[in-house]
Amino acid sequence: MPLRNLEDCFHDELKDVLSAEKQLTRSLPKLVAAAEAEALVTALEEHLAETEQQVARLEQVFELVDFAPRSKKCKAMQGLLEETADVLEEEADPTVLDAMIIAAAQKVEHYEIATYGTLCAWARLLGHNEAAGLLDQTLQEEKAADEKLTVIALELVNREAAVNV
Amino acid sequence: MPLRNLEDCFHDELKDVLSAEKQLTRSLPKLVAAAEAEALVTALEEHLAETEQQVARLEQVFELVDFAPRSKKCKAMQGLLEETADVLEEEADPTVLDAMIIAAAQKVEHYEIATYGTLCAWARLLGHNEAAGLLDQTLQEEKAADEKLTVIALELVNREAAVNV
Repeated sequence: MPLRNLEDCFHDELKDVLSAEKQLTRSLPKLVAAAEAEALVTALEEHLAETEQQVARLEQVFELVDFAPRSKKCKAMQGLLEETADVLEEEADPTVLDAMIIAAAQKVEHYEIATYGTLCAWARLLGHNEAAGLLDQTLQEEKAADEKLTVIALELVNREAAVNV
Repeated sequence: MPLRNLEDCFHDELKDVLSAEKQLTRSLPKLVAAAEAEALVTALEEHLAETEQQVARLEQVFELVDFAPRSKKCKAMQGLLEETADVLEEEADPTVLDAMIIAAAQKVEHYEIATYGTLCAWARLLGHNEAAGLLDQTLQEEKAADEKLTVIALELVNREAAVNV
């Protein structure tokens, strides 16, 4: 399918992020299982629930713009999650592994921040105002999830990992 | 090599980002060649020059922390750049392609923002103050590059792509 205009780009990007979110719902439980610090486990569990809601919200967006919800394999998220899987196979002290899990999760969050930022801008320009509102809701959730991970890293995990011998 | 503490994580992440930056220096020229809008071509060319400097700066960081500069294949950047390469193969109007190039480039920028954010926090906590300063310089460049792309998208490219039939 050729990309004729911004509407086509918007559809293409929606398919990409639907794939990304679905891949993430399958990977987050592995991070939850591997994390040690209670605050981190809770944050990841909450983000898993949020991600499942975001998939449902994306399906609403597809409906609003009258486009069949299909996903297109997101190779970027695949790469991000392969790297995350490698982290979980590292031989590491639990606190040290927590620091690596946060680093990996924040890369995933930033991927989503970039993607939803683009989708919001495109939706607004295309006059898809209701869709833009939903996409912006997800964008704010991704930013909040990223900030929460920063706080857990700075206030708890990094310090413990640093003193570890 | 087991990850015993945050210093080991720091070394591991440095190897990852060195690979990421080197991969990017090979991909950015393809984006430059494919971009149409003059402002976008200039921004990408400037970021290529900046990325080459960032590789040199990373090598300085390795030296400062007395660690041999080695890279470890960054699978996340590989995935991001595979997706970017797919974008360049799309059949698309040049302005529409510009919108897709910006979207892809901003995902790359955000990957780097997350990575350098983590590296800065770890370097500071580990007392690698000079290294932290260099890493923060790169972090600020990545944020500025991302913002410049947002401006080009909002003020120029998206609007042209939207009116395209």
